[in-house]
Amino acid sequence: MTMITRVDVHDVRFPTARDGDGSDAINRGDYSATYVELRTDDGPTGAGFTFTNGRGNEITCAAVRALAHHVTGRTVEEIAAEPVAFWRSLTADDQLRWLGPEKGVIHMATGALVNAVWDLRAKLAGAPLWRFLAELPTAELVASVDFRHITDAITPAEATAILDKGLVGLADRRAELDRDGFPAYTTSVGWLGYPDAKVRALTRAAYERGWRAMKMKVGGQLADDLRRARIIRAEIGPDALLMMDANQVWDVDEAIEKMAVLAEVGPYWIEEPTHADDVLGHARIAAAVAPIRVATGEVAANRVIFKQLLQARAVGVMQIDACRVGGVNEVLAELLMAAKFGVPVCPHAGGVGLCEYVQHLATFDYLRVGTALPGRMIEYVDHLHEHFADPVRARGGRYLLPTAAGYSSTMRPESVARHTFPDGPAWR
Amino acid sequence: MTMITRVDVHDVRFPTARDGDGSDAINRGDYSATYVELRTDDGPTGAGFTFTNGRGNEITCAAVRALAHHVTGRTVEEIAAEPVAFWRSLTADDQLRWLGPEKGVIHMATGALVNAVWDLRAKLAGAPLWRFLAELPTAELVASVDFRHITDAITPAEATAILDKGLVGLADRRAELDRDGFPAYTTSVGWLGYPDAKVRALTRAAYERGWRAMKMKVGGQLADDLRRARIIRAEIGPDALLMMDANQVWDVDEAIEKMAVLAEVGPYWIEEPTHADDVLGHARIAAAVAPIRVATGEVAANRVIFKQLLQARAVGVMQIDACRVGGVNEVLAELLMAAKFGVPVCPHAGGVGLCEYVQHLATFDYLRVGTALPGRMIEYVDHLHEHFADPVRARGGRYLLPTAAGYSSTMRPESVARHTFPDGPAWR
Repeated sequence: MTMITRVDVHDVRFPTARDGDGSDAINRGDYSATYVELRTDDGPTGAGFTFTNGRGNEITCAAVRALAHHVTGRTVEEIAAEPVAFWRSLTADDQLRWLGPEKGVIHMATGALVNAVWDLRAKLAGAPLWRFLAELPTAELVASVDFRHITDAITPAEATAILDKGLVGLADRRAELDRDGFPAYTTSVGWLGYPDAKVRALTRAAYERGWRAMKMKVGGQLADDLRRARIIRAEIGPDALLMMDANQVWDVDEAIEKMAVLAEVGPYWIEEPTHADDVLGHARIAAAVAPIRVATGEVAANRVIFKQLLQARAVGVMQIDACRVGGVNEVLAELLMAAKFGVPVCPHAGGVGLCEYVQHLATFDYLRVGTALPGRMIEYVDHLHEHFADPVRARGGRYLLPTAAGYSSTMRPESVARHTFPDGPAWR
Repeated sequence: MTMITRVDVHDVRFPTARDGDGSDAINRGDYSATYVELRTDDGPTGAGFTFTNGRGNEITCAAVRALAHHVTGRTVEEIAAEPVAFWRSLTADDQLRWLGPEKGVIHMATGALVNAVWDLRAKLAGAPLWRFLAELPTAELVASVDFRHITDAITPAEATAILDKGLVGLADRRAELDRDGFPAYTTSVGWLGYPDAKVRALTRAAYERGWRAMKMKVGGQLADDLRRARIIRAEIGPDALLMMDANQVWDVDEAIEKMAVLAEVGPYWIEEPTHADDVLGHARIAAAVAPIRVATGEVAANRVIFKQLLQARAVGVMQIDACRVGGVNEVLAELLMAAKFGVPVCPHAGGVGLCEYVQHLATFDYLRVGTALPGRMIEYVDHLHEHFADPVRARGGRYLLPTAAGYSSTMRPESVARHTFPDGPAWR
């Protein structure tokens, strides 16, 4: 039995704002993490985090502290035996639920804690999380999903059928990923804060390194968006994929009008064309801009929002975030719903450690749930990996499968110490 | 010019959990408030708060502190001159927005601050907030609304037309409310934590005091819900209104099945039949349970959720919460959309100070926006009013109009001191 004896919370912030990295139409900040370590009596440390944008990271830290008593003093074995009961102890806490429910700060804190538990479980099993999940019996995976409020979209029986079918050909798919890696796209070429020359140079360099799918930010002046898009399209040619991300700045009709113009450069998807909560708005936009796909999900709060996006046929690409929703358990629900509705999942990454997280989720999805590669890609942003003990490895526009045990969520102790806010050397 | 020089934040908690007051299918806690005071150089203090459920109130306090720099050092006059710019400084802060966006902890903190500004403005004008709002020129009200992300449901021109029309007959409606008060319903008779005999006694007493609309909690065992509902219906007779509130415990199909049984007692509405984020689910339920109305809103995160509830015809009653959304500015948007779609607003109240807040909003709504009383009621819960400087007054099942200047949001200093967590005498 492995007992979780203590939850340590670290307010870790990286000074990214000064370089314009990560700038888009709405967000500009110092990429940060509410970093959580689950100390055990005689086992490894479980590591998890949620990503934030700088100021306010102390709020998610406070939320983790408020929830931590549901984790401290429990054994990994009892959590694994009753995963939904454990998950609900966090998401349905009878005092803290009011602060969400299941959204925003309190749910992000849940995500950090729940992911840390899964990291711990995978470390104890000696397997990378993707393999740990892919090898779990169907019944155990199904028992990890809280079906409350989603039974109108997927039932435990349907989930069981999907996961059982995912056992067929599993070894072949794994061999394929071992050999080729997982398809990816890069977001590092077209942040709004970058001048045209930098966009052109980064695009050219990325293409030369093998990237054939690139994402740019839009949502500034339409003429600027179009000019930058033409630069990228000219560099990558007609066959490579160009994705656009508006980070929610447009109203519904505005999104439809703008995309009619930007369609000139042949975008593959338009991401976050309007407010993330607007399921009906996304459905209208999706119908209007087809065959351009609508993508969203990085700030979709929970499985109930994803459920509706799928039911309303509002998305052609689903972009789960590994730590905005309530961790692996909720991601499982979302992957299963996406598979049922036939929508590929291309996880949100970037930020701090999101690439490290989602490579496991996308790999598990392909191996055991979605089982087809076309349309599946993981976002890749090339920064801050050096702060992780088991950083992502990308080659030729693909992620190489992680091999170390756990969820790749462990940060290097010296990085945590250096960037702890406000007392670490990086902030003094 | 009145300068806001300082923002004081108080973690105020009342030990309500021990009595079962406020218990329902999901929430049970110590009613609390993140209480905010805007100190001015030579004017009154603006008071605002957001309601929470006990543990975790320190998280919303931290969120207010993170946002406070947008308020400190600004004059009331400059905020009044550019209300949307001020509102967006809070809701679209380029680092903090990620923590919502516009939902949960960070948005509740915005609500506390924005409401405090409106309290201050009304105090400076020497008017209760309802009258201050009702007498504002249409252009100023319209300029207070952030139409971003809702123009597909309501435009500034449509809002202008509604508010101009609301000037017709305004004096008559005001005289009517001065004379009769505002219709209300009580939620104090049927909390889940109460035994049958207590439900019966409270119902009888409420009926004798003049209440003709009462709400009970459901979502426990169906047989228990039905038995308690029959007790209340037997006490109040066939003509009084009986409302039911499931606090989100049901799945969509489950809600439809349960309400087919509970329909026996003739409920007027079913409130929060399923997860609050589930617009499409509410729409299905609404179609299935008609003529019973679906009501929701107390945890609807923002105007984009309300917009969709209206667009999807998912609600027959809209229950705004005064301090979960971003304060008066966002409530204005929601009242205007409800009026356009012809859905009455019955604000959520109870908790700490919500009755004090929403009497102003409901009164303004009737006077200037909705202009018809049928279907309009304010929730009334009879606890914790004694902690407010200008507590609600209810008589014969109606609210009497508040007369003191401001938003009735000022707490008594001795109540704040006594209940400050964790160092106040009530908690030591």
